[in-house]
Amino acid sequence: MSATEAARRTALTSALSGRGLAGIFVTTLVNVRHLTGFTGSNGALLVPVDGEPVFFTDGRYRDQAAAELPDVAHVIGRDLSGGAAERMHVGRWGIETHTLSVDAHARLAELVDQVDLVGAGRVVEDLRQVKDEVEIDALRRACDISTTALAALLDGPLVGRTERAVARDLENRMLDLGAEAIAFETILAAGDHTAIPHHHPTDRVLETGHLLKIDFGARVDGYHADCTRTVVLGRADDWQREVYAAVQDSQAAGLALLCDGVAVSDADAAARGSLEASGWLEAFTTGLGHGVGLEIHEDPFIAASHAGKLSSRTVLTMEPGIYVPGRGGVRIEDTVLVTAGAPEVLTTMTKDLLEIG
Amino acid sequence: MSATEAARRTALTSALSGRGLAGIFVTTLVNVRHLTGFTGSNGALLVPVDGEPVFFTDGRYRDQAAAELPDVAHVIGRDLSGGAAERMHVGRWGIETHTLSVDAHARLAELVDQVDLVGAGRVVEDLRQVKDEVEIDALRRACDISTTALAALLDGPLVGRTERAVARDLENRMLDLGAEAIAFETILAAGDHTAIPHHHPTDRVLETGHLLKIDFGARVDGYHADCTRTVVLGRADDWQREVYAAVQDSQAAGLALLCDGVAVSDADAAARGSLEASGWLEAFTTGLGHGVGLEIHEDPFIAASHAGKLSSRTVLTMEPGIYVPGRGGVRIEDTVLVTAGAPEVLTTMTKDLLEIG
Repeated sequence: MSATEAARRTALTSALSGRGLAGIFVTTLVNVRHLTGFTGSNGALLVPVDGEPVFFTDGRYRDQAAAELPDVAHVIGRDLSGGAAERMHVGRWGIETHTLSVDAHARLAELVDQVDLVGAGRVVEDLRQVKDEVEIDALRRACDISTTALAALLDGPLVGRTERAVARDLENRMLDLGAEAIAFETILAAGDHTAIPHHHPTDRVLETGHLLKIDFGARVDGYHADCTRTVVLGRADDWQREVYAAVQDSQAAGLALLCDGVAVSDADAAARGSLEASGWLEAFTTGLGHGVGLEIHEDPFIAASHAGKLSSRTVLTMEPGIYVPGRGGVRIEDTVLVTAGAPEVLTTMTKDLLEIG
Repeated sequence: MSATEAARRTALTSALSGRGLAGIFVTTLVNVRHLTGFTGSNGALLVPVDGEPVFFTDGRYRDQAAAELPDVAHVIGRDLSGGAAERMHVGRWGIETHTLSVDAHARLAELVDQVDLVGAGRVVEDLRQVKDEVEIDALRRACDISTTALAALLDGPLVGRTERAVARDLENRMLDLGAEAIAFETILAAGDHTAIPHHHPTDRVLETGHLLKIDFGARVDGYHADCTRTVVLGRADDWQREVYAAVQDSQAAGLALLCDGVAVSDADAAARGSLEASGWLEAFTTGLGHGVGLEIHEDPFIAASHAGKLSSRTVLTMEPGIYVPGRGGVRIEDTVLVTAGAPEVLTTMTKDLLEIG
């Protein structure tokens, strides 16, 4: 895969030279992974516009760095910033001020000489918004595993088991299907627990008549799937049908706007407008969606305040919901790939209201 | 549990007033959890020395905040820093410059007026080094679950199964025993993979003659256990026995120094000196140990450069190892509670060399 990472670094140096930077010191671990393939827990990367990149990690990762970064020079030591400072010479060097701590910045500033450290913004995150083929393939596999596991889980039985047991069952199915890990701690909520957007599974027993909300995903090669389905155990009552339909409509309205060139704020407005039309906007208390990739939540975040436009090859979620404390809630969420036309839904599974058992 | 968190906040305000601070704005999520009990993914806490604390989170956590923080005022909104800035009046206020990003700091500095923002150091982390009864109880349970699960796993069979399958088996056993989650992704390595300190389980099949190294733990109420055992599948050869004995001796030498009042650097020197005496120091490439609690790696980190002393009620690991690339490695790790006398090993399980199957 090293050609993939080399291409990503080339895209980065192009972006940097356009800003008059001599290079960048990448300290955000997930950005380091994107640019090198390194999967360890401590590493940093110096990327000069002219010259070769240098990777820094500690002794625990000596062999792993050799295996994962065969074509990048690496320096092993405890003081990653010190190693980088020695290699930053005159000029303006970018740093990741959105994640670099105040203390780490002060220390780096002391170490460098004749170097101007300037915030490079979210330049790597911006590049990460547009996925390459390797990334899309991993996301596709993660989403396939997720929906295959959920479909099997929903074959039941479900009633009579606890939230916790059913959540673990789903997680084990994803791992059996080849997930390297779960993408995040499964949110599985029954009955009025569905009103809590981020509910931790408990020992509550699933009963006929309950709404059952499951927000879950698999991780494959570091890439995360994110999917939510809400079903009814038994026959849905009128209130459950009404709320479900309102969320389903909102999700469809939002999805329809996830196309190349569309303003992010327009996608936000479409999904929100649908909830407003059905009278449920006040019961929607979370965000409408977010990018997914090496992080479960990454740029772009769908919001009215987002000034940007969507690009092809961006992968993100659309996840409106209705949450009525003490009564219940519904969320429907897909992970989708933005294209020039209709978005490709990667979490392919019906969104019709399922009445189970 | 709210009395527990109130007591922690009282300890904090005592530490702050000794430094002439009007209060602190706590933005490190795990510190917020320690001081409030909040388990969500976004929150901050303003703790004035005089007056009541105020907790900030976003709309997703409205109900959860009400349930988890019944005795702390909370403010719901997207802009946590803005809410805090409004409530910081004249004086010197502490901020967590070791984790607060350069950008977040700049923004906060713009929002406040007549307020001097000063780095408060790792004041909350320092308090977290000494565990209270609630924390020790959770750590005890996490460690009990971990070692109970490992003992059952080692009953076998092991030979013929993959690293990945055996790791999942262990994780499922911990969850069956009541762990809320695994503490970290299990490191399970067979054969020459044991030479990689942080190895991800693969499809390698376990064979007779292999070293098998397992670094794992359970999480209970947010608290992490951390334990490593290395065994031999079948009869150990002379090299395996020699390396194992060297690590076992080093770990015993290090553990013997984990007592109240002992310099951290002395514990480091004891374990390292043992490895030097046996001729294996160069094959030891990681750190010797770290605190465990709400984080899997937290203060204090055992190192020659650590200037502090150990205190009773600190919980930390001792984990020397030998790693010989291409051949194999051994690590032995316990989570222990520091006392005035011998440390209490929480991960109670034999450290004699086990020859299994």
